[in-house]
Amino acid sequence: MLTREDCLAADRQDQLAALRQQFALPENVIYLDGNSLGVLPTSAEARSLQVLRQEWGEGLIRSWNTAGWFELPRRLGNKLAGLIGAGSDEVVITDTTSLNIFKALAAAIRIQQASAPQRKVIVSERDNFPTDLYMIQGMMDLLQQGYEMRLIDDTLSLQQALGDDVAVLLLSHVNYRTGAMHDMAAVTALAHQHGALTIWDLAHAAGAVPVDLNGSAADFAVGCTYKYLNGGPGSPAFIWVAPRHQDAFWQPLSGWWGHSRPFDMAVDYQPAQGIRRFLCGTQPILSMSLVECGLDATLQTSMAALRQKSLALTDLFIQLVEQRCSQHPLTLITPRAHAQRGSHVSYRHPEGYAVMQALIDRGVIGDYREPEVLRFGITPLYLSHADIWDAVDILRDILDSASWDQPRFKQRHAVT
Amino acid sequence: MLTREDCLAADRQDQLAALRQQFALPENVIYLDGNSLGVLPTSAEARSLQVLRQEWGEGLIRSWNTAGWFELPRRLGNKLAGLIGAGSDEVVITDTTSLNIFKALAAAIRIQQASAPQRKVIVSERDNFPTDLYMIQGMMDLLQQGYEMRLIDDTLSLQQALGDDVAVLLLSHVNYRTGAMHDMAAVTALAHQHGALTIWDLAHAAGAVPVDLNGSAADFAVGCTYKYLNGGPGSPAFIWVAPRHQDAFWQPLSGWWGHSRPFDMAVDYQPAQGIRRFLCGTQPILSMSLVECGLDATLQTSMAALRQKSLALTDLFIQLVEQRCSQHPLTLITPRAHAQRGSHVSYRHPEGYAVMQALIDRGVIGDYREPEVLRFGITPLYLSHADIWDAVDILRDILDSASWDQPRFKQRHAVT
Repeated sequence: MLTREDCLAADRQDQLAALRQQFALPENVIYLDGNSLGVLPTSAEARSLQVLRQEWGEGLIRSWNTAGWFELPRRLGNKLAGLIGAGSDEVVITDTTSLNIFKALAAAIRIQQASAPQRKVIVSERDNFPTDLYMIQGMMDLLQQGYEMRLIDDTLSLQQALGDDVAVLLLSHVNYRTGAMHDMAAVTALAHQHGALTIWDLAHAAGAVPVDLNGSAADFAVGCTYKYLNGGPGSPAFIWVAPRHQDAFWQPLSGWWGHSRPFDMAVDYQPAQGIRRFLCGTQPILSMSLVECGLDATLQTSMAALRQKSLALTDLFIQLVEQRCSQHPLTLITPRAHAQRGSHVSYRHPEGYAVMQALIDRGVIGDYREPEVLRFGITPLYLSHADIWDAVDILRDILDSASWDQPRFKQRHAVT
Repeated sequence: MLTREDCLAADRQDQLAALRQQFALPENVIYLDGNSLGVLPTSAEARSLQVLRQEWGEGLIRSWNTAGWFELPRRLGNKLAGLIGAGSDEVVITDTTSLNIFKALAAAIRIQQASAPQRKVIVSERDNFPTDLYMIQGMMDLLQQGYEMRLIDDTLSLQQALGDDVAVLLLSHVNYRTGAMHDMAAVTALAHQHGALTIWDLAHAAGAVPVDLNGSAADFAVGCTYKYLNGGPGSPAFIWVAPRHQDAFWQPLSGWWGHSRPFDMAVDYQPAQGIRRFLCGTQPILSMSLVECGLDATLQTSMAALRQKSLALTDLFIQLVEQRCSQHPLTLITPRAHAQRGSHVSYRHPEGYAVMQALIDRGVIGDYREPEVLRFGITPLYLSHADIWDAVDILRDILDSASWDQPRFKQRHAVT
């Protein structure tokens, strides 16, 4: 039986323990929601004041050149690239994940239209994060060209779904609810074998698990910087396009930032070469600048080291729940196999919503997701083994005492 | 002949003079580029630290509810509404101007497709800001339904361009280069008379001139908050949709923020009622929060008072250039008639680029725009009559001495 002392001993051996100093964590909180909104890097305040005082306040319009604002999407994209197996000038930080899905989808559809116009199906998963499905629906509704969406219910049905009518396969690398992870290389190979192009949503994967986009021969990827990458609330997202596809077509959100010579003010759109054509309009510089603080903190270690600790902590969480909460109706919905697990752990519980509110009330901040799911994000950058012990200890106490069974914990908020 | 003393006397009478205290302006700069990037409100630093420390740092994920992040697009949209003649819950702050053009264009096209599918032409102006034209081109290229763009070269050709094949008229209220302003009510009436829907780009109008969207019976409008509204570099844009059109169709950038119940995580997109369906993905909260600082500063006065001072200052600029620079080849390209003038003044000069660099070198920050255009943004919130005198005085000195004629002023930057 594991004890808290075992956890403290593991923390003393933890090579990544010092990274916690890179983040300003609130007192009396165990934060298990870094996969929804990452925490504040300690460097963010100084950077924010620099942007406000020097760059905006003093530099004003000159800062587009002198402070490098115009190059931020590409410069920060290059910093991110190494964390997701991308090369130089293959990624830009820009817009939102939803919008980047639209761009990737449009590009993938156009590539297929050129060589296989009969392919009119976009395959995804029923329990993919909904915005992915909504963007597909928006695209189909706009095109009015007979496209349809085919949703699979489990990975086993993937092969069957990939008929010769499929244009695009859009999957999340790590499922937002269950934490189940796809084998990106194997799934991409299967898709290619059936003539489909792949778009990977890395929202719960970037900074969470090792990702090898080029090594997997993926086609397109998008993701967000405000979860495991600690970029700040709603910080701009990213898009990666395999070099072989970058210059294939325009993407239709063809704003002036994607023009080859934006300041010529030409009437006709002429896309920039390479990844820059996936930019559209002027970016929110303050929010984007802080993305660098989170990236720099992550770049102090390696994805391999983070993965090792992430698996140790998610294993620990699962083991402690088994050891200490086994008499309660918690059903693990996250895969036990390491190769199929992201960096969060989720359980169903019939009163999941109230249990999560009771946890938050005790300072253990996780997430509730429909239906009945308690989701715990495990972020190795700033969590310790003792944090995991303490979180499960509070969970056990709440379940043993049924302290979740109060009206105040059952009241639904607009956003949870 | 006007003197600097006359300008100082006008400043002593200026009821808006105290508003300059709301902004942190650099020393030794006369900033005539507030129509490209507005200046830093003094309240922005404290607000930024509040978002970082309390809202992100301490509140973390809870701040989506407790700090009202989720409501920011609508709450700030309602603050902006009064400045552009919009009603409550008709505007949201979100995304970029380019993306909002795409949404408005898609909605307008769908409305026309339902009742007048033969209308396949989108009319705009050849010297509209290019991103407006590029977004039209991106949409046409995506739809592949035979749409075409018809560009007019002057307002007089508008009537002729509005044939019975026209679906949408997309114009900038104030031209980014010349400062020429359309009569929104008259042009909208003309468009409607010919069966076309209107999209107004208010980038150089919002906060600069009185705008009356509802009073003009306009259909759609978009614009940016980082120019006259002083929201910060790349701060999120806005979109307004006339209430009669809001629930007509989805817009195709149908991300989860536009869903009627985003946290149900339903598979099918179900658009929210009203303007909220024009939202797409998660917004950059830090950049968006600072939009409020600029709005609050503007809301301390009225658009009528700002307009009065703006016209006085642009008149003064034009008069002083005539009085003091008449022997130089400066050609005014901004209309002299008040009803046709926005809040900036532009001149052509054969060596416009070098002259502007020389001005910037002397602390008079304006903008250069192709071809040969010197552009001076006149922002009554923080400029004085003496500032205008001093700016023209330095311009005169540069022209008289030909000090612009140096290699260092002729070297082109990537971004100007």
